Amino acid sequence: MTTATDLLADQELLETEWDLAPLVDGEDRAGAERMLPYVPAGVTLCNARGAHDPAVAEWIVAVILAELRHLPEFVTAQQAGTWHAIPSEPLAGQTVLIVGYGSIGEATEHLLAPFGVRFERVARHARPGVSSLDDLPALLPRADIVILLVPVTPATTRLADARFLGRMHDHALLVNAARGSIVDTAALLAELNSGRLRAALDVTDPEPLPAGHPLWSAPNLLLTPHVAGASTDAIPRVRAIVAAQLARYAAGEPLANVVGGQGY
Amino acid sequence: MTTATDLLADQELLETEWDLAPLVDGEDRAGAERMLPYVPAGVTLCNARGAHDPAVAEWIVAVILAELRHLPEFVTAQQAGTWHAIPSEPLAGQTVLIVGYGSIGEATEHLLAPFGVRFERVARHARPGVSSLDDLPALLPRADIVILLVPVTPATTRLADARFLGRMHDHALLVNAARGSIVDTAALLAELNSGRLRAALDVTDPEPLPAGHPLWSAPNLLLTPHVAGASTDAIPRVRAIVAAQLARYAAGEPLANVVGGQGY
Repeated sequence: MTTATDLLADQELLETEWDLAPLVDGEDRAGAERMLPYVPAGVTLCNARGAHDPAVAEWIVAVILAELRHLPEFVTAQQAGTWHAIPSEPLAGQTVLIVGYGSIGEATEHLLAPFGVRFERVARHARPGVSSLDDLPALLPRADIVILLVPVTPATTRLADARFLGRMHDHALLVNAARGSIVDTAALLAELNSGRLRAALDVTDPEPLPAGHPLWSAPNLLLTPHVAGASTDAIPRVRAIVAAQLARYAAGEPLANVVGGQGY
Repeated sequence: MTTATDLLADQELLETEWDLAPLVDGEDRAGAERMLPYVPAGVTLCNARGAHDPAVAEWIVAVILAELRHLPEFVTAQQAGTWHAIPSEPLAGQTVLIVGYGSIGEATEHLLAPFGVRFERVARHARPGVSSLDDLPALLPRADIVILLVPVTPATTRLADARFLGRMHDHALLVNAARGSIVDTAALLAELNSGRLRAALDVTDPEPLPAGHPLWSAPNLLLTPHVAGASTDAIPRVRAIVAAQLARYAAGEPLANVVGGQGY
């Protein structure tokens, strides 16, 4: 029996499949489920839950601080050789809404906690301290920063549409560390171009973003090329997860992080 | 008797004197001492210790993460419309050396602690957990990130000279949130242009940086225009400090944060 874990151990796959783990929500494993139709009989599909959490959480804090401290503007001013101070609003006291609260959301909270922010959390199923997606209309207007971490499912595709974005208050910041298809690109472009909202995106729709796409030149946007999880320590972390899976397999124990398939 | 605290209460001074507090080290108040020659008889000079700590600490974390996550490169790539991923080294496991360990250093440690970094600390006088400036030659080669927070004194002027920078290891990051005169600009330029070191500077020598200065076009540099302390909540914080001073003055109690002068 070959498991997908075996496939993951392949070096080339490891280095190209950066984009698996950020899909995985704490309770939803649907991110990797889109691969199931391609999984042959006798193969079990597992994911690498947690491998990219620290890197993605670090990227989220990096872009939030960069936006608040006007670093993109200062990089541009540096290129032009102009010295012009812009004061910043402090992160302390801001309300951060995590949409798709799972292991990456937890890691992000851990990093943001000392900055003195308030957290609101949303996931597919409400649980203590976590609201359901149905509560978004009430929560969005109160959030200064909205972080998208949901997996791609029919319920989350284009979740951040014109109505979602329209409920965010003026000058609020949208951070997408999930997938480009979670956001309605045209609706976001309208909010960025009007100057009403700001955004930091690691993922786009389409992706990679083609030359000439209007997102490239949109104002109030910080764009990175799908690198939130791309940390040099992610590969060793994935290897450790694979090694632990192989040890379970050899010992006849249940595999961890099983997404599906008929192999097990 | 007029105190300098009274002067600080002047709105215009408050709004222009962003540059006072970052000078103030935890044990050294020499940053504001350079003003003493201009203080008239009968006037006590006090500083606003702590007013800018949260904003400066936040800026320090912002530029460290921006450098590690290649945000300046991605801003440039965004302007050019090019999608090219660069993986990042994680902040976790890195050694951060704080040179001039005082209240801003403490605030910075508080924010950086969850990222899993190691701290080394240096101040004018050694104390438990804090080394003296004499230990810098041994500490610099072990630091991945060196944060300058010392006040300007004869001992710290050009502290970061060619020898200091030469002891930093390849690809280490220098962060200057103190004053431009702490760094030997020519020596830093040589290290940046060779590609051996990286830097994030909020302060320069001279300042403001004149048009055409080679720092504007130096590679491996993130430059901000003296805004580390420029947070919109710094003014209310300074006002609260001034109000507390006035209450002490009215009650005949000793003033806090006295730098010097003959008024008290």
